[in-house]
Amino acid sequence: MRTWRKVGLALASALGLWIAFGGTAFAQDELTTAELAVALDTLWLLVAAFLVFFMQAGFAMLTAGLTRSKNTTNILMKNLMDFVMCSIAFWAIGWGLAYGASAGGFIGTDQFFLGDASEEGSVPVLASWLFQVVFAGTAATIVAGAMTERTKFTAYLAYSFLISLFIYPVVVYWVWSGAGWLNTYSGNTVDSWGFTDFAGSTVVHSVGGWAALMGAIILGPRLGKYGPDGKPRAIRGHNMSLVFLGVFILWLGWFGFNPGSQLAIASQDNANAVALIAVTTNLAAAAGAIGALITSWMKYGKPDMGQTLNGVLAGLVAITAGCAYVTPLSAIIIGLIAGPLVAFGAEWLDALKIDDPVGAVPVHLICGIWGTLAVGLFASIPGNTGTTGLFFGGGTTLLVSQLVGVVVVGLWTAVTAGTVFFLLKVTIGLRVSAAEEEAGLDIGEHGSVAYPDLLPMPEAETIPVPASNVSRASAQ
Amino acid sequence: MRTWRKVGLALASALGLWIAFGGTAFAQDELTTAELAVALDTLWLLVAAFLVFFMQAGFAMLTAGLTRSKNTTNILMKNLMDFVMCSIAFWAIGWGLAYGASAGGFIGTDQFFLGDASEEGSVPVLASWLFQVVFAGTAATIVAGAMTERTKFTAYLAYSFLISLFIYPVVVYWVWSGAGWLNTYSGNTVDSWGFTDFAGSTVVHSVGGWAALMGAIILGPRLGKYGPDGKPRAIRGHNMSLVFLGVFILWLGWFGFNPGSQLAIASQDNANAVALIAVTTNLAAAAGAIGALITSWMKYGKPDMGQTLNGVLAGLVAITAGCAYVTPLSAIIIGLIAGPLVAFGAEWLDALKIDDPVGAVPVHLICGIWGTLAVGLFASIPGNTGTTGLFFGGGTTLLVSQLVGVVVVGLWTAVTAGTVFFLLKVTIGLRVSAAEEEAGLDIGEHGSVAYPDLLPMPEAETIPVPASNVSRASAQ
Amino acid sequence: MRTWRKVGLALASALGLWIAFGGTAFAQDELTTAELAVALDTLWLLVAAFLVFFMQAGFAMLTAGLTRSKNTTNILMKNLMDFVMCSIAFWAIGWGLAYGASAGGFIGTDQFFLGDASEEGSVPVLASWLFQVVFAGTAATIVAGAMTERTKFTAYLAYSFLISLFIYPVVVYWVWSGAGWLNTYSGNTVDSWGFTDFAGSTVVHSVGGWAALMGAIILGPRLGKYGPDGKPRAIRGHNMSLVFLGVFILWLGWFGFNPGSQLAIASQDNANAVALIAVTTNLAAAAGAIGALITSWMKYGKPDMGQTLNGVLAGLVAITAGCAYVTPLSAIIIGLIAGPLVAFGAEWLDALKIDDPVGAVPVHLICGIWGTLAVGLFASIPGNTGTTGLFFGGGTTLLVSQLVGVVVVGLWTAVTAGTVFFLLKVTIGLRVSAAEEEAGLDIGEHGSVAYPDLLPMPEAETIPVPASNVSRASAQ
Repeated sequence: MRTWRKVGLALASALGLWIAFGGTAFAQDELTTAELAVALDTLWLLVAAFLVFFMQAGFAMLTAGLTRSKNTTNILMKNLMDFVMCSIAFWAIGWGLAYGASAGGFIGTDQFFLGDASEEGSVPVLASWLFQVVFAGTAATIVAGAMTERTKFTAYLAYSFLISLFIYPVVVYWVWSGAGWLNTYSGNTVDSWGFTDFAGSTVVHSVGGWAALMGAIILGPRLGKYGPDGKPRAIRGHNMSLVFLGVFILWLGWFGFNPGSQLAIASQDNANAVALIAVTTNLAAAAGAIGALITSWMKYGKPDMGQTLNGVLAGLVAITAGCAYVTPLSAIIIGLIAGPLVAFGAEWLDALKIDDPVGAVPVHLICGIWGTLAVGLFASIPGNTGTTGLFFGGGTTLLVSQLVGVVVVGLWTAVTAGTVFFLLKVTIGLRVSAAEEEAGLDIGEHGSVAYPDLLPMPEAETIPVPASNVSRASAQ
Repeated sequence: MRTWRKVGLALASALGLWIAFGGTAFAQDELTTAELAVALDTLWLLVAAFLVFFMQAGFAMLTAGLTRSKNTTNILMKNLMDFVMCSIAFWAIGWGLAYGASAGGFIGTDQFFLGDASEEGSVPVLASWLFQVVFAGTAATIVAGAMTERTKFTAYLAYSFLISLFIYPVVVYWVWSGAGWLNTYSGNTVDSWGFTDFAGSTVVHSVGGWAALMGAIILGPRLGKYGPDGKPRAIRGHNMSLVFLGVFILWLGWFGFNPGSQLAIASQDNANAVALIAVTTNLAAAAGAIGALITSWMKYGKPDMGQTLNGVLAGLVAITAGCAYVTPLSAIIIGLIAGPLVAFGAEWLDALKIDDPVGAVPVHLICGIWGTLAVGLFASIPGNTGTTGLFFGGGTTLLVSQLVGVVVVGLWTAVTAGTVFFLLKVTIGLRVSAAEEEAGLDIGEHGSVAYPDLLPMPEAETIPVPASNVSRASAQ
Repeated sequence: MRTWRKVGLALASALGLWIAFGGTAFAQDELTTAELAVALDTLWLLVAAFLVFFMQAGFAMLTAGLTRSKNTTNILMKNLMDFVMCSIAFWAIGWGLAYGASAGGFIGTDQFFLGDASEEGSVPVLASWLFQVVFAGTAATIVAGAMTERTKFTAYLAYSFLISLFIYPVVVYWVWSGAGWLNTYSGNTVDSWGFTDFAGSTVVHSVGGWAALMGAIILGPRLGKYGPDGKPRAIRGHNMSLVFLGVFILWLGWFGFNPGSQLAIASQDNANAVALIAVTTNLAAAAGAIGALITSWMKYGKPDMGQTLNGVLAGLVAITAGCAYVTPLSAIIIGLIAGPLVAFGAEWLDALKIDDPVGAVPVHLICGIWGTLAVGLFASIPGNTGTTGLFFGGGTTLLVSQLVGVVVVGLWTAVTAGTVFFLLKVTIGLRVSAAEEEAGLDIGEHGSVAYPDLLPMPEAETIPVPASNVSRASAQ
């Protein structure tokens, strides 16, 4: 909106000419290539952050579509509020815990409230913050899926604030801060531990997945999910168009999630790495779809769209840890294996009577673990991981590192998230009443319905209805 | 699609090497950093423009979702056509009025039909045009929301052409051209008037909001909106999933709208500014949601999703004027206050019997005014505004400037838009018949319905139906 | 996720300073402007690729919305799987055929399985691959629209694999490889043949359109589409909100499709070209909408949204060949003519009893041909095409080149795609049974429905239903 820039550029150009022809030899330009590189990296990081931000809408469409229309407003509202709570929590505390300075290697201790961190000559801290906050929001929102159709809105608000405040940031510090005990590095040398998770199969997806698992267990299954004979019953989602749209928004967002995690693009090496990551990401997604398609076809006799779409997500989650370290062919293999894992993972959960309405645990936890371990098998670019994987001559060193990271992060998350859910259960309560669950959480929690033209609104006359979903604030 | 580039690069590299080792000292590269900066800024401006363009889809989903399914086709069609009309009007006339050269300070007078404006050494004029046309389209489309469910399609076509042709461009000239009477500046020095609106709380959102208000007043409320007792009645929107999707598309688009308004990224200072703007934008959105959530909870006893989503938009509109000048904490405060403003603003309108079906006036006008004034309170980066705000030691100078700008732009828009709507009313008519409004504008204006499988099509047999919404052109 | 970058940058800066003040004159920076240009071009190409990828979701929403809800799952599944199959086919074979080295000028013969192609000093091959694979996916998915509501899922899988494997790549080699017989060039000089298709009106859209036409002919019309009197009957699409969203996602994606096809942005000339392309693209889309709006208004007495939205796509397809070579005014004229072509094209098809449920042939084939020929009329930038068009003093040379290209590519695609469809028809079968078509392909092909809450599920009890569209894998 300013012409300042133009004027500035004109001045800079004039100055540049003056210097070039009359000034000293080494100040020939106002802009150095180092400064341009900072600007280019900033642009890249921000664009990637915008794409990852949009994944919030993808998760919301996916989750809402895979569940019943009587709970749609509630699901959307939870997806909205978990990113909202995350933005505030990660601004105040989370970022400081994750990326603040620390001597101990366990937790960051400064930069709270985004204080005092900008530096010349590097990507602005605020750009890094934006990129990180959308990752934190992803971890938070994964949980919503496994807990849909029965969780109290207030309890979910509290939980989503806490995961972004400390559960997730502590894991980030351990793995990604550069000073954490699971992976300390300086320059390009990784220390001997070397747990390697490029873009977050474990740090983001498994953390979300473990929390989702604990939530689903502590909540218990939805009414009617398991029959008197103990067998699971199909509860159909209400809108497959939303599910499809959600998955494609997520796939799009993953092009920010994985390639953006290179954190830089302004050199030949970085550009090469980013391009490789984009390709491995896409191929793993495609292979995941094929793996799940074949599995569902063989299991049910027909190709199932819900399963195949979850296969896409399975491939994406699985490639996230190793996207920068594996070849395109390895990416296809990793994705192909992730596809069936989602299908069978859902069966394992049902066998344990754990009700995960959208398959968040199979997608994010099981494939998150698979993808993290797969780095120990398929990594073929030693410069980044310190060593190569088992199938590329590196032995089991990396695989063991990966296994330790998976277990440690799993324990941390399961214990802390489990404690949070347990405390919420015994205080404000975690689950709505059976009557509310039956009528739908839209009416009970929000006094509203998502599709008043299309669906009857049960009990709308008997429950006080706020002016939701209508011309704003025109309470009758 | 070309390998030209590769060949060119190879030649350039060869040439570069030759020069580096054999040529003169200062011509060492084909590409100067100044030229790269132009390219980088162009890329940034275009990507931002693409994001802002996508906001058109966001507004359409939001507006359609918040209204009844019998008017969906009509709403979508208006949202489509206002950007279409805007593209043509802003190509022919609007851009020239907004950014053409002028001596008087009131209106631009050249560059019509995009003629004759390209310059070496700066971002291409066509890139700037694209960035500006999507802003013009935003101002135009805001109006659609307040006038839904009762406006004639032809009248809306005429109006949306005129706002992009001259109402909006004149305001842009006054505030953003660099030579306008509300804000003249050269280099980084702002003249004494100094009305400051970084990305358009006033220039875009209030202009849209004032026009929306005039339209809603001149149209009158929808049938049945106010009962015989004068009390407003709830008229429910038909699809909250669309509303949610619309708001998240808008939130995404705002990452182009605000950060893109820096117009440049290719220096450390610009990169820092862009990152700050992205962060303040995101935090204000989150805070707006919290403010609206709490307000709706207190007012209605339950957390309302429609209100909370409008709270997101409220925060985004409010931070738009000051996003480059305030701290993250100030952004949160600005957003927090915007949230309740939307909820109470809707009540004020209802008290005046002004029917704004989607809350366009509270969101874009009231929060646009709030955000513009907030610059006079919270601005803490004096380099850009000439002075700081009241809370940061700058006294009331800036606040007074802001107030004058708000009033002047409000008067201009209310008078011109009001005149346009009045003239349309007394000539071709502004409102559909009561019978058509009752049956839905989809049937009356377009001979179609949006969801034929899901909803009965009233009177479909009695009204001639074109081959809309069907396999193209297969008229029965 | 790494702080490596920071450390690297710090080191680079330190090194830079050391060199600047103590080193040799010409090594003053680690990063050269040539290397930055590579990085900037890579970023641009990847962002464009992401936008084009998202067009897959646009096509899916468009196609699903324009058809009946009983076929929604099947349509979405085909749209998903054609990009999945394309990703694998184009990785293994397609890329090598399209861009591999060859002496003969007819087909590429190396770089299969993405082998052995990376080079220093240029955009990474993998970035180019990603940009090309999303184009291949576009060509593949166009076909889905014309064949909806009656095609066997297995046959479609096979077809979509084959088009990406060889039908499309061969055309790419002929036109875009730089060594193909339809357009050989080196540097900026085009050889005498000079068939010119900047971003794919012919290479992508007509290829998809010809295949769609052959598929629709060989399949035959949907049951009930043509009455006993031979007159076409309207079969309404089920969701105009999805159609609108789809078109806007496509419009957004086209900002990657056309401007991205410049393949570079890192110089003043490239930045100028990219900006021009973005503007001509947008203006042609707007003009296409206006052309179709007026046509539908005159034909049916009311402005039709389905037609107008297809007018947007018509304008976009038509400008694709010439977007870099024409003025903004020419773009408007090209779009304005494309609008009516879609409306009348649909009538021509109906007269021939060719049932194309979503208008894929009028949009992609007819407007693809129009846009390609329009280059021969309106091209006014001789540097890129070797000559100007008929209306800009270049005579008929270019027009003849264009005509030859249109005919040759049309013959190739019609013959190969026709053969594939014919072979599928006589082997595994191309069309579902009449009973399945009546009940909907969602039940028959996938044992599922897209909207179980909203619509009755006919025969759901009598057909074995897999755990689709429900909490994953909970087979009853």
